[in-house]
Amino acid sequence: MNERFEKLNEEKVFKDPVHRYIHVRDRLIWDLIGTSEFQRLRRIRQLGTTFLTFHGAEHSRFGHSLGVYEIARRIIDIFRSRGDWDESQTQLALSAALLHDVGHGPFSHAFEKVFGTDHERFTQELILGDTEIHDVLAKVSADFPVQVADVIGKTYPNRLVVSLISSQIDADRMDYLLRDAYFTGVSYGHFDMERIWRIMRPSEDQIVFKLSGMHAVEDYIMSRYQMYWQVYFHPVSRSAEVILTKILHRAKVLYESGYSFGQTPLQLIPLFEGGMTLQDYIRLDESVMLYYFQTWQQERDKILSDLCGRFMNRRLFKYVQLSKDQLIAEDALTDAFREAGIDPEYYLEVDSSSDCPYDFYRPGEREERQPILLLMPDGSRHELSQESDVVASITGKRRTDHKLYYPKDSVLALPESSAVRKKISELLHFPT
Amino acid sequence: MNERFEKLNEEKVFKDPVHRYIHVRDRLIWDLIGTSEFQRLRRIRQLGTTFLTFHGAEHSRFGHSLGVYEIARRIIDIFRSRGDWDESQTQLALSAALLHDVGHGPFSHAFEKVFGTDHERFTQELILGDTEIHDVLAKVSADFPVQVADVIGKTYPNRLVVSLISSQIDADRMDYLLRDAYFTGVSYGHFDMERIWRIMRPSEDQIVFKLSGMHAVEDYIMSRYQMYWQVYFHPVSRSAEVILTKILHRAKVLYESGYSFGQTPLQLIPLFEGGMTLQDYIRLDESVMLYYFQTWQQERDKILSDLCGRFMNRRLFKYVQLSKDQLIAEDALTDAFREAGIDPEYYLEVDSSSDCPYDFYRPGEREERQPILLLMPDGSRHELSQESDVVASITGKRRTDHKLYYPKDSVLALPESSAVRKKISELLHFPT
Amino acid sequence: MNERFEKLNEEKVFKDPVHRYIHVRDRLIWDLIGTSEFQRLRRIRQLGTTFLTFHGAEHSRFGHSLGVYEIARRIIDIFRSRGDWDESQTQLALSAALLHDVGHGPFSHAFEKVFGTDHERFTQELILGDTEIHDVLAKVSADFPVQVADVIGKTYPNRLVVSLISSQIDADRMDYLLRDAYFTGVSYGHFDMERIWRIMRPSEDQIVFKLSGMHAVEDYIMSRYQMYWQVYFHPVSRSAEVILTKILHRAKVLYESGYSFGQTPLQLIPLFEGGMTLQDYIRLDESVMLYYFQTWQQERDKILSDLCGRFMNRRLFKYVQLSKDQLIAEDALTDAFREAGIDPEYYLEVDSSSDCPYDFYRPGEREERQPILLLMPDGSRHELSQESDVVASITGKRRTDHKLYYPKDSVLALPESSAVRKKISELLHFPT
Amino acid sequence: MNERFEKLNEEKVFKDPVHRYIHVRDRLIWDLIGTSEFQRLRRIRQLGTTFLTFHGAEHSRFGHSLGVYEIARRIIDIFRSRGDWDESQTQLALSAALLHDVGHGPFSHAFEKVFGTDHERFTQELILGDTEIHDVLAKVSADFPVQVADVIGKTYPNRLVVSLISSQIDADRMDYLLRDAYFTGVSYGHFDMERIWRIMRPSEDQIVFKLSGMHAVEDYIMSRYQMYWQVYFHPVSRSAEVILTKILHRAKVLYESGYSFGQTPLQLIPLFEGGMTLQDYIRLDESVMLYYFQTWQQERDKILSDLCGRFMNRRLFKYVQLSKDQLIAEDALTDAFREAGIDPEYYLEVDSSSDCPYDFYRPGEREERQPILLLMPDGSRHELSQESDVVASITGKRRTDHKLYYPKDSVLALPESSAVRKKISELLHFPT
Repeated sequence: MNERFEKLNEEKVFKDPVHRYIHVRDRLIWDLIGTSEFQRLRRIRQLGTTFLTFHGAEHSRFGHSLGVYEIARRIIDIFRSRGDWDESQTQLALSAALLHDVGHGPFSHAFEKVFGTDHERFTQELILGDTEIHDVLAKVSADFPVQVADVIGKTYPNRLVVSLISSQIDADRMDYLLRDAYFTGVSYGHFDMERIWRIMRPSEDQIVFKLSGMHAVEDYIMSRYQMYWQVYFHPVSRSAEVILTKILHRAKVLYESGYSFGQTPLQLIPLFEGGMTLQDYIRLDESVMLYYFQTWQQERDKILSDLCGRFMNRRLFKYVQLSKDQLIAEDALTDAFREAGIDPEYYLEVDSSSDCPYDFYRPGEREERQPILLLMPDGSRHELSQESDVVASITGKRRTDHKLYYPKDSVLALPESSAVRKKISELLHFPT
Repeated sequence: MNERFEKLNEEKVFKDPVHRYIHVRDRLIWDLIGTSEFQRLRRIRQLGTTFLTFHGAEHSRFGHSLGVYEIARRIIDIFRSRGDWDESQTQLALSAALLHDVGHGPFSHAFEKVFGTDHERFTQELILGDTEIHDVLAKVSADFPVQVADVIGKTYPNRLVVSLISSQIDADRMDYLLRDAYFTGVSYGHFDMERIWRIMRPSEDQIVFKLSGMHAVEDYIMSRYQMYWQVYFHPVSRSAEVILTKILHRAKVLYESGYSFGQTPLQLIPLFEGGMTLQDYIRLDESVMLYYFQTWQQERDKILSDLCGRFMNRRLFKYVQLSKDQLIAEDALTDAFREAGIDPEYYLEVDSSSDCPYDFYRPGEREERQPILLLMPDGSRHELSQESDVVASITGKRRTDHKLYYPKDSVLALPESSAVRKKISELLHFPT
Repeated sequence: MNERFEKLNEEKVFKDPVHRYIHVRDRLIWDLIGTSEFQRLRRIRQLGTTFLTFHGAEHSRFGHSLGVYEIARRIIDIFRSRGDWDESQTQLALSAALLHDVGHGPFSHAFEKVFGTDHERFTQELILGDTEIHDVLAKVSADFPVQVADVIGKTYPNRLVVSLISSQIDADRMDYLLRDAYFTGVSYGHFDMERIWRIMRPSEDQIVFKLSGMHAVEDYIMSRYQMYWQVYFHPVSRSAEVILTKILHRAKVLYESGYSFGQTPLQLIPLFEGGMTLQDYIRLDESVMLYYFQTWQQERDKILSDLCGRFMNRRLFKYVQLSKDQLIAEDALTDAFREAGIDPEYYLEVDSSSDCPYDFYRPGEREERQPILLLMPDGSRHELSQESDVVASITGKRRTDHKLYYPKDSVLALPESSAVRKKISELLHFPT
Repeated sequence: MNERFEKLNEEKVFKDPVHRYIHVRDRLIWDLIGTSEFQRLRRIRQLGTTFLTFHGAEHSRFGHSLGVYEIARRIIDIFRSRGDWDESQTQLALSAALLHDVGHGPFSHAFEKVFGTDHERFTQELILGDTEIHDVLAKVSADFPVQVADVIGKTYPNRLVVSLISSQIDADRMDYLLRDAYFTGVSYGHFDMERIWRIMRPSEDQIVFKLSGMHAVEDYIMSRYQMYWQVYFHPVSRSAEVILTKILHRAKVLYESGYSFGQTPLQLIPLFEGGMTLQDYIRLDESVMLYYFQTWQQERDKILSDLCGRFMNRRLFKYVQLSKDQLIAEDALTDAFREAGIDPEYYLEVDSSSDCPYDFYRPGEREERQPILLLMPDGSRHELSQESDVVASITGKRRTDHKLYYPKDSVLALPESSAVRKKISELLHFPT
């Protein structure tokens, strides 16, 4: 091992509800955790708007990042004890595990939709640009930051290191399934992580899994499946996400139209104008966004203040499941909303789950996700869904569901006998 | 039961990691949860600065408030099944349980120290003043809001209802011990809550506990003791609390001296000027505070920007345990800091645990906390610490410990050979 | 409610690791638990030979029976609170839940295979015959024992009561999945039982499940699937089961041939001779069987003593997975074993999982197991596997796997150069 | 390391509910587990008669022994990673951990009371005598069995190795507290084991504990305290223990008087006659005892058959707490029982908790239990109860409580108006 990698005098630990303790023995890891850019992850929630559905889900990306590091550390320990690990890759793998999410911004998904930002690009910049993180990494060697960025960007030549962080069954996914299950309190999301570790076999290009432990892998895939449908795609969280998107969109439109805000949203102007620097980005976090939503409740613009009030006070949109016919009826609904004085641009949204970044298991579809390979007793490798009926049943299926979100309270506030209320009610199939 | 208390058509549930599910069957409770003042609790952390020590402790007072309600609901169910409950008090008790913490502001302890605000007063105002909560409560009857406020204020004549929410072993404490243990991940904080419920016997003036379950009560008291020393008084969280206090103090001093902030802290001016209204208060939450700390990192005032940077990026003060001699040496230290150009008003603080609102068990000392009474087989009542050696051992002991907090990094940044650095190092007993 | 159903003066509780507490409020239930026939369940393990694979699985049918009772009690509580329950059926349903397994004998599966006993018949006899259980039940009314037997026998006219105890998703299965997972320590077997309870809707003929909770039901089915393959059909437990069967078979053969046992196996003679009475049966339990296995280790008959030594000291048979070719080769193997002096009647056994009583979900196949029906929003009912891809993937599939069990140690004890050892090794494909 | 210590080709694991997995990498440990003497522990319950109070407590000493081994293994791993461990002692320490309880017989406490057997002596004999265990150990070296016996006997010169297995806070106690809490389901018994491991500092004579983790040690002591009073000394289990003792005593008296048993209790004759060999002892287990209790229910001797029926069917004795006066009244009670035809020798017993082998913390009292020493920042050592008020409060206190056990049902079966029933009722203070 390189002498640039200093050990701490005494191991440091973080108490963690998921892994009991997170152990840090390396000066490098300790210093990375201490950077302001890493500490910023405390102000970015792990699950965006999900806390409005599952009130326990208030945990941040800080704990998750530590958890991914810890899982990578323990897997490497197991590989090492079997003589199956190249020690020169340890610090690189651990750094990449720790930093893989560092570029996430507040409510990333909504932001990326409205402003076209890209958290993966910012992760790269945070590692390579003028940051404390870069300074810490560069102390190892001049090219170490680039190597870390390459592992996270999946272009690093050692595929084994890449697959530890980014594969269908990696340290990232293992941590978030267990962690999100813990904080939401749902009973899905459990699987036998230690068993999976024990059947992992590193190979040149990726980690493969001994057939004898297939059922543990199957169970992991099912946990993922359940978490996607029960937690990550929950329609109430999606409603909050729709409103969030509308708020950002409205603010942008207002800014572009020269609207004068009660208090100038200094931190957001780079976003509105498109010239956001790394430093601008780092200063954004969910506290800043919530501060604006808080103050915008008093804005003169009725749409902006109403949407912000909805988000802050959880007066969310309701939804109807859309069948084919209703998709056709969308135009009529848009017209009716307009007639009722409810701007359909902000108060009517079709949200389709297939737009979501789901991937509970689609081998081969997105090239960057390697399929899960089982190591057969004869040394050959079989793709998981060939062996498992259960996994096959959910593989590669796109379960598109369309939901139309709208403010039911606003509709119910229309005069009871009005024709437009009646029309909307009919289109949405609810008794007026 | 009064017909003003409407049942929901269908029970609503919240998934909760501590109690599995929180069940809501009453329109009143459902409406209270939906008020903007209650939703605001999502933006007030349950444990203030503790998340900087235990990263899991990011949970808000929202979940805790639901939890207290749920415990009260279940205890009442048990009393009811034994025919031991006056049904006319149910909605009152549940409302009070739900709302008992609603007046908490951001980082309450530090705020109260610097600005003299009082969360208990605001709880009263939020229930009695011009709020959505008040409107919901007043629909029950004109005097219902006052009754709820009286239960929380401990002046309500039915002492049994009061003791359910405010006693040494009440729904509030039971929830927070279990919840804080869950989110921090510590192994303290567990006790057999269901056993305690089963041995509770309501009496006219308070709840008493059957002797046969004394050990469960003992275990609860020990959990509280461990949680206090291991979590609530953790010196690292107290360091963050010290810095927080210093930030608020500095901002106030600057405002009073006519300092011009880069961005006027509109929401804080009522605090600085002392004329804070209920509406001003409601708008304050931890996002707003973190927004200011974020922006103040760029302030011209070096002290304010440094302190905010410390808080946001967790560059906390270190501490030394103070013996008597060192307490005497404080003046010398203050002088040395001043000589070194480190303002002791902001960078030197003695924090004493005996100032903290701890109460792991002191029967009789604070009149509002009733002692825990055991119901003996002969019908008499004995105070817990008379029967339990373990509880007696920690009862009424004031374990004062003094810690001096200071920025070790700043001291180490002084020229290594300087006399002042040497002097400070000697006074603090660390090798220079 | 009938006055014959006396309440206890004070609720009794059992501490239970799975349900926290089991609550008994009825004299009838309390008295049933106190009968010697129910207490006997403490001496019958819940999972037969599984403790030899998962050492935690030493729990008995006693705790399971209490657990089934407790689940039934809680479900009825929920139905009752919705006004959905016929109170006249409560004691009947609870008694049937408690007693459903009372006829199980020691190592039931092996016993039934060798001696043709039938635990379901004995359950009926224990309820209807001359037993303490019958006396307790008959105190309710003359026909109450028959009603309890009918519910357990699935012939009782009220199908709802039957389905509570015997359906694809009943109190029995819910308890054993959770309990067996708890005691073995596996991470499978968890599902959100409380959610399932909440979406249960009693109807005239059976319980149906609201579509909105389909995922919880899906998760339950997957738990069952995993528990079957990971725990219940574990090949090591099956090896112990094979040996057990061989012991019983050998003892029977010896007895029939007039062999004189060192100590006459008084309790087993009725089994050997086929005239077992109810009283004979009740006296059998696993302690008695283990006592015989213990003493038979010293028997003169080499086969009996060897097999008993294997079972007691966990020197189990090894197995090879059988392909078609190997099934064909079985005759050759039998010959080779005989040639080697290893009696194939006792030391060679093909065990096929499809013989096992598995039922992880086969709607309609065994008429007594009702399919799981989902209640759609329009009031219609759909069978679960029509709605769930995951459940469909494992429905009605018979995954037959054949394993050949044999004593590898005995083969390895043959002279290394012997032709017969070589032949056996070849047939079993292991390197000699 | 010595080449005699062979590693397994592949690590073996046992699924364990307490430690998740138990890992075996050494041929020596694997072979010890496979011996018939170690497998016998599956037929000895960990908590004797406690399963009659807590139905979950059916677990055997087998799992506990694996657990003690696993804890020792993990502690050694931590010491090793700090360079604080003498590798030559590893296999010795692990073997001793695994085997420390191997000499326990069925219901040890009652047996030792009636027959004067000594499980510690049998542990020594099992290691040193003609056993499979001895053969496995002797393969290491001729003196290895003696070393293992010396570690367990606490006479081995390396005090550190001894203290790992036998001290106030050793692998044995840590495992049984966690395990017994798990299987009984009680909420006591939890403590932060990993924290304790991390603050352990091996020294020449024993393990000491860093002051900074005192609270974790305190919590462990409190768990022990609660487990003793809530589980280990539970009066219902003690009632079963009293009956068990009476059964053994009665059987012995009958044998000595030449009574002819229906079925000669072959396995027990060496006990009755006092010449028990190691082989006799090994053949005894709880199945054998339960077999006899089962058959003795049909014995002609009324006392023996009644007592066995009570034990098997859990018709236990009731108890009254004895005050001084009642202790004085014992003679009167004995006379009254005799008058009523209830033999006081078998149906009246004063059981005093101070007779029990409790040791929740008494430094110095029993020389073989070292006190817990805290390592102070200045390197000195302080005994725990000097630093901890809580521990001091329970240290060295002998809480003697006397309970008189008797068959209430037999008393209630006396003619209601009889003088003797009235007298007994008065002496026992219960309303007739």
